[in-house]
Amino acid sequence: MTNPTAALLIIGNEVLSGRTQDANLKFIATRLGELGIPLREVRVIPDVPETIIGTVNEVRARFTYVFTTGGIGPTHDDITSECVARAFGVPWEVHEESRRIMEADYSRRNPPVEMNAARLRMATLPRGARPILCSETSAPGFVMGNVHVMAGVPRIMRSMFEVVAPTLEGGTPVKSRALHAHGLLEGQIAAALSAVQERFPMLDIGSYPYYREGGNGVALVAKGTDEAVLEAAAAEIAALIRADGKEPIMGEPAAA
Amino acid sequence: MTNPTAALLIIGNEVLSGRTQDANLKFIATRLGELGIPLREVRVIPDVPETIIGTVNEVRARFTYVFTTGGIGPTHDDITSECVARAFGVPWEVHEESRRIMEADYSRRNPPVEMNAARLRMATLPRGARPILCSETSAPGFVMGNVHVMAGVPRIMRSMFEVVAPTLEGGTPVKSRALHAHGLLEGQIAAALSAVQERFPMLDIGSYPYYREGGNGVALVAKGTDEAVLEAAAAEIAALIRADGKEPIMGEPAAA
Repeated sequence: MTNPTAALLIIGNEVLSGRTQDANLKFIATRLGELGIPLREVRVIPDVPETIIGTVNEVRARFTYVFTTGGIGPTHDDITSECVARAFGVPWEVHEESRRIMEADYSRRNPPVEMNAARLRMATLPRGARPILCSETSAPGFVMGNVHVMAGVPRIMRSMFEVVAPTLEGGTPVKSRALHAHGLLEGQIAAALSAVQERFPMLDIGSYPYYREGGNGVALVAKGTDEAVLEAAAAEIAALIRADGKEPIMGEPAAA
Repeated sequence: MTNPTAALLIIGNEVLSGRTQDANLKFIATRLGELGIPLREVRVIPDVPETIIGTVNEVRARFTYVFTTGGIGPTHDDITSECVARAFGVPWEVHEESRRIMEADYSRRNPPVEMNAARLRMATLPRGARPILCSETSAPGFVMGNVHVMAGVPRIMRSMFEVVAPTLEGGTPVKSRALHAHGLLEGQIAAALSAVQERFPMLDIGSYPYYREGGNGVALVAKGTDEAVLEAAAAEIAALIRADGKEPIMGEPAAA
């Protein structure tokens, strides 16, 4: 069985301008991998309606699941929700249940917060969307078709993702084996590593040099869904590291 | 005059799987903004030849400049260079000058490093490419047409970028004014902020809530190329913050 696939759209001028360091990609990629839904493409796009609409329509046709982050707040630059409605060709209208939930939340605040036109935008969803209610905010994300629209604030995004996760039809989780070798040079083991990749075509084998104060080296990583195959490949990778006179270290090394 | 534009391709399974946190986007986005070449789109794509070739051809037609990071090392998963050659429809062949430079570097090492078939891949470029030689490594990046192919290792990428930067035809640098307001709620100033955006259509005005241990708030950011216009917009933004009873703080706040 082939695993489902996913694409992520990071929507927002602030990431493209370098003002904000994206803090969502790694989390979503890791969680999707655990669910057996490999992330196949990420796009960072600006707050431009035509770009958002065109990109949503392109990726929702190509991938099993689409996730978006950013652009669902109350200000004029928050246009993701409206653009998703236009991408699906449906009206963008107040979602009464979401409005009630937000109003109840606002009235409980001290001092109470007023439901004004800007905040009502956050309760305005594409017709037919299913709201994503999380514990971090009363303003919803939503699911429209295979598109999952989430907040850009990492704490809220993570909460929304975990609400959505049980509703996703996952595949076989992607597992990995990482072997590190201090002092190893990529160019020294490239041919032998390529031969391992050829013997295990069902795995993705990657080579990632690292440069640390404690010394340089290479991380060799095998990814795949079959544990037994991964073990066999890891043993071969360990052997080729030893053949170069280095000692393989299993697992992720300590951060630099 | 319209500014030139740029796209960035981050090539590598390790970013898409969540194993590696991208550390290049923010640097490249910031530097390009300073050069007046706004970054308009970023894609993170896997080490799959058809995806790399198709994406390179799509974005090089749409943007003034394309930058890529990743996939130019010596191992079997380093396929960016070969894919760029295929995207341009030119042979992928040993670049003799690059080979000599690398061999000279390798022979000076202690112990000397052998120029094997895997390392020779790093001296193999699309026909017609101009190598990017930086101080961090003897293995080159390269420029092919409007596509700038750089290493994925941040230290090497930055060095390559600074070699390339003086060759880029920049536009008017994009400047910004950021005003922070602790305790401000986005929904409270959204209408007034939208009015400022309408009065300054030549600027991009964004609203970014932050959540910190020291208290929450909002950063309001205006971006554009005209300093006087930015100053005028910043004054209006400061006034709308004060109208909500908060005190605007100029500049970036300290990190959380």
